[in-house]
Amino acid sequence: MTDTIKYLLDESRIPKVWYNIMADLPKPPAPVLHPGTMQPVGPDDLAPLFPMSLILQEVSTEREIEIPGPVRDIYRQWRPSPLFRARRLEKALQTPAKIYYKYEGVSPAGSHKPNTAVPQAFYNKEAGITKITTETGAGQWGSALAFAGAVFGIEIKVYMVRVSYNQKPYRRALMETYGAKCVASPSSETNSGRAILAKNKDHPGSLGIAISEAVEVAATHDDTKYALGSVLNHVLMHQTIVGQEAMAQLEMAGDYPDIIVGCTGGGSNFAGIAFPFIGAQLRGGRKVRVVAIEPAACPSLTRGKFAYDFGDTAHLTPLVKMHTLGSTFTPPGFHAGGLRYHGMGPLVSHALDLGLIEAKAYNQVECFSAGVQFARAEGIVPAPEANHAVKGAIDEALRCKTEGKSKVILFNLCGHGHFDMQAYIDYFAGKLTDEHYDESELAMALAGLPSVPA
Amino acid sequence: MTDTIKYLLDESRIPKVWYNIMADLPKPPAPVLHPGTMQPVGPDDLAPLFPMSLILQEVSTEREIEIPGPVRDIYRQWRPSPLFRARRLEKALQTPAKIYYKYEGVSPAGSHKPNTAVPQAFYNKEAGITKITTETGAGQWGSALAFAGAVFGIEIKVYMVRVSYNQKPYRRALMETYGAKCVASPSSETNSGRAILAKNKDHPGSLGIAISEAVEVAATHDDTKYALGSVLNHVLMHQTIVGQEAMAQLEMAGDYPDIIVGCTGGGSNFAGIAFPFIGAQLRGGRKVRVVAIEPAACPSLTRGKFAYDFGDTAHLTPLVKMHTLGSTFTPPGFHAGGLRYHGMGPLVSHALDLGLIEAKAYNQVECFSAGVQFARAEGIVPAPEANHAVKGAIDEALRCKTEGKSKVILFNLCGHGHFDMQAYIDYFAGKLTDEHYDESELAMALAGLPSVPA
Repeated sequence: MTDTIKYLLDESRIPKVWYNIMADLPKPPAPVLHPGTMQPVGPDDLAPLFPMSLILQEVSTEREIEIPGPVRDIYRQWRPSPLFRARRLEKALQTPAKIYYKYEGVSPAGSHKPNTAVPQAFYNKEAGITKITTETGAGQWGSALAFAGAVFGIEIKVYMVRVSYNQKPYRRALMETYGAKCVASPSSETNSGRAILAKNKDHPGSLGIAISEAVEVAATHDDTKYALGSVLNHVLMHQTIVGQEAMAQLEMAGDYPDIIVGCTGGGSNFAGIAFPFIGAQLRGGRKVRVVAIEPAACPSLTRGKFAYDFGDTAHLTPLVKMHTLGSTFTPPGFHAGGLRYHGMGPLVSHALDLGLIEAKAYNQVECFSAGVQFARAEGIVPAPEANHAVKGAIDEALRCKTEGKSKVILFNLCGHGHFDMQAYIDYFAGKLTDEHYDESELAMALAGLPSVPA
Repeated sequence: MTDTIKYLLDESRIPKVWYNIMADLPKPPAPVLHPGTMQPVGPDDLAPLFPMSLILQEVSTEREIEIPGPVRDIYRQWRPSPLFRARRLEKALQTPAKIYYKYEGVSPAGSHKPNTAVPQAFYNKEAGITKITTETGAGQWGSALAFAGAVFGIEIKVYMVRVSYNQKPYRRALMETYGAKCVASPSSETNSGRAILAKNKDHPGSLGIAISEAVEVAATHDDTKYALGSVLNHVLMHQTIVGQEAMAQLEMAGDYPDIIVGCTGGGSNFAGIAFPFIGAQLRGGRKVRVVAIEPAACPSLTRGKFAYDFGDTAHLTPLVKMHTLGSTFTPPGFHAGGLRYHGMGPLVSHALDLGLIEAKAYNQVECFSAGVQFARAEGIVPAPEANHAVKGAIDEALRCKTEGKSKVILFNLCGHGHFDMQAYIDYFAGKLTDEHYDESELAMALAGLPSVPA
């Protein structure tokens, strides 16, 4: 056996529960605050935006939350997703390390995002909701929710960051093929959008602005709720099926990871692969080094503050404690649109603060170079976001080579790059450059963080 | 269980042999002729183009040909591919029919093409070949061979039909990501290409022209062979793993197809799903209705002649008896580039002549409409080629509804449409129209068929 190896679980092995890391943390994360009262928000405060079942998941401290049967039925279309041992990549790198990757690009929308889009649509449907608004950057989340909306017969409206809306017409076409409506953000449809456009009619948009628009529409319409593709506790929790499956698949292979690598934007794919292993460690299991890779052009974990901040630009969301670059920070327009967010999931931020994970930042050109090497070895073209994880894993494997150590590396290949080929064209043409943020803009955004009484 | 059902085989069930329908045909197909002598070609005539192991497969009458271990090792990355029962589509159509689809879009290149690209690259590698030339229309075949070339370390050069080269830069980028070289055809690199360009420097190209260029380069370079993605017997045979797997998966489901539907360009995905079932029927098994769907704008099976013709435009190939529109016929530029070929696989043509299959032609707009309906129900966006099979299957299911019959329909969803989103954008914008060929051009092309002594 010298070729790439696939580890596939039987359908009966699709996890029956989502894993909630809240149950195992040595210290709970800081509470979410109401920006008016500076008091912890209660379930009722969130009720205009989310169905109650999701709000209860958001605040739950139960270790396991049962996955509803109809959600598992839909998961069965592409789950359990395969785990691969990247033998061809190992050979190309001449590394003694074993490299495993979980591949989430097999889902209908081509990424890990349907893992949470499906249950979110399910719970909304159950609550009688007929419309959901959301935001999207590169479009992976938007297309995942569009797919879930098509399955459950829910109308989906997606506010897509304008720069991506223009750069990625094909991702937009995918959403429309699923029947969703897609609008460039900032748009003239909302107060938040109009306020931005009044200052700059050509504003490129940002995830923070798109969130404001989607939240505003949901908050002001009774038949409409809002859905978020990352950051929140329940979203990260839905993704833990990835790590649970990977654990079972590595057991088939007779291995356990020494190092886990994931890319981080809001933190959902990263938490999905890592939290089940961190939980096992917290319950007395084997220690694992967990490395979060973020873009150097939007480095919330490595350059941001761990502080209370708004999740959006118009300050319509509650205040959450997270690693943030400041809600007014507009990241430069690099290709990994899914990682262009000023903040980070509170649970991922908390895990970094507790020393359970480490963080590293990479520039985009070196990530595309790693992605091309991966594609030539393994045959799969990764999404620009996933290229960050690929680069992180390759670097760890090369370090093993230098040190002569045969470590087990696991990473999450969270999506394919079929809708991102323009970025590869630019890379081959030598037109791709490393984007840099403006240090003074970052300083200003950090200085403008809301002050919260201790 | 009300949702879409997936039938997955264990890796040990990847077929160990390719099925060769030649062994079961009541009458052998007409021999391939040398255009100079009008005598049947022998293995040596083909030796400049193909390694001997593939030539022997081309003329073999053995029922089963063993799949080499290293080829099965690579197949394992995505095979066995899933078979789905399209419960959500059945519900949307309110049909009593059971609709099953085999999904080949899970391969690294996103279509069924790697099923033959991998063994072709393997046999060339074994024969010490370092370079392979080929042609591609929409790019599915070119990207599949590029993937296989990357795995075996063989240099791949792809002559891509110019209209597709310009329309589909992302499919081209995929080939380049895998490390292949891609050239617009007609090119100035070959005599065949230069001859066409001399008459029309803006010639849009055709598969027939691109084949001429690739064949010319292989025939004139010792270290270079040629590979074809469809039409030839050995190519169709490599695809029979699709039908063999589907048979085992339907057995899991407790069903057997009454109707099999596939789209046909050169015939490889169609033969792949259908031939194992036709073979079973010829050996005394159950009768199955097999429907080949072709584009109305390039209707070789429904409007072509069953006659000897060249496979390419410059007349560098041997003469094969097939359903053909004439080698000088240039199909209009509709989106299913993989179906834009003037001829048809000799074995598929022969099967039609023997009454083992039927053929139907559809226009592209109705096929895209079916594809969108399929995507909204099943979550998978089909390639434009595959939309023809989807339309055929939906029509059969609707006929079952009218007749109140619960038949079992099987079709091959041969690839995803991620690189074809511009076609969907055009469809939604109402810009997609049905393309028509020129009747007088067809008449002229048919009149120009080579005359072969009876």
